[in-house]
Amino acid sequence: MRIIRDMEDSIFSKIINGDIPCHKVYEDDRVLAFLDIHPIQPGHTLIVPKCQIDHFDELEDADYTALFDAVKKIAQQQKRVFKKQRACVRIEGFDVPHAHVHVYPCDSPADFYGPDNRAFIEPDHDALAKVAEMLSL
Amino acid sequence: MRIIRDMEDSIFSKIINGDIPCHKVYEDDRVLAFLDIHPIQPGHTLIVPKCQIDHFDELEDADYTALFDAVKKIAQQQKRVFKKQRACVRIEGFDVPHAHVHVYPCDSPADFYGPDNRAFIEPDHDALAKVAEMLSL
Repeated sequence: MRIIRDMEDSIFSKIINGDIPCHKVYEDDRVLAFLDIHPIQPGHTLIVPKCQIDHFDELEDADYTALFDAVKKIAQQQKRVFKKQRACVRIEGFDVPHAHVHVYPCDSPADFYGPDNRAFIEPDHDALAKVAEMLSL
Repeated sequence: MRIIRDMEDSIFSKIINGDIPCHKVYEDDRVLAFLDIHPIQPGHTLIVPKCQIDHFDELEDADYTALFDAVKKIAQQQKRVFKKQRACVRIEGFDVPHAHVHVYPCDSPADFYGPDNRAFIEPDHDALAKVAEMLSL
């Protein structure tokens, strides 16, 4: 486990440290990827650096490269598994002060935005566990 | 100039080849970055690989690395120049079949979405030229 630095614990550092469970898709020394429990589209994955830093553009080179290498692998896997034309990417970062990349399968511009009420839909953890298993790398 | 491959010319390959002008922010052997003329936020930059490929996740490693190295540089520069908290990133790709990354300065979740009518606002090329000069790397 790499050392968490710089900031107070966010929910992502608790997930990285194993204090909160997640539907894991991918892990390496520098990166953890797990399903968003309020998906924009099925398969919506959050890819986070294990070092705790708020802004993706302030990551050190090795962590930055590892993060975007994982983005590429997961985007390809989502297209294969969900048979979608594209994987879309968002980096916003207003909700959790720990850098994270959203990656999710899309077939149309409307898919990019997803349902407005997604934050209020109760997560179906059995379904999420099955999706994580299908996407697992 | 690197060889354009795979697909029909899109507007981006015409910009890369110099057949259509752009408000350039950054260029290296593998990447060109220029302002979106219908910005989500002032400073909104499109970062494109010079090789013509539709899906960012299908780029070869050297082009992929160059693309995201440019994303990092431009995100940092946007935050400095516009004194914004964050640079946001989008990859959708439905409008032009040539991989491209949108990067733009943001201070709030609403900034991520921008104005609905942006596609219908006439570009102010004098203002865009000034922004490109401020962001130029």
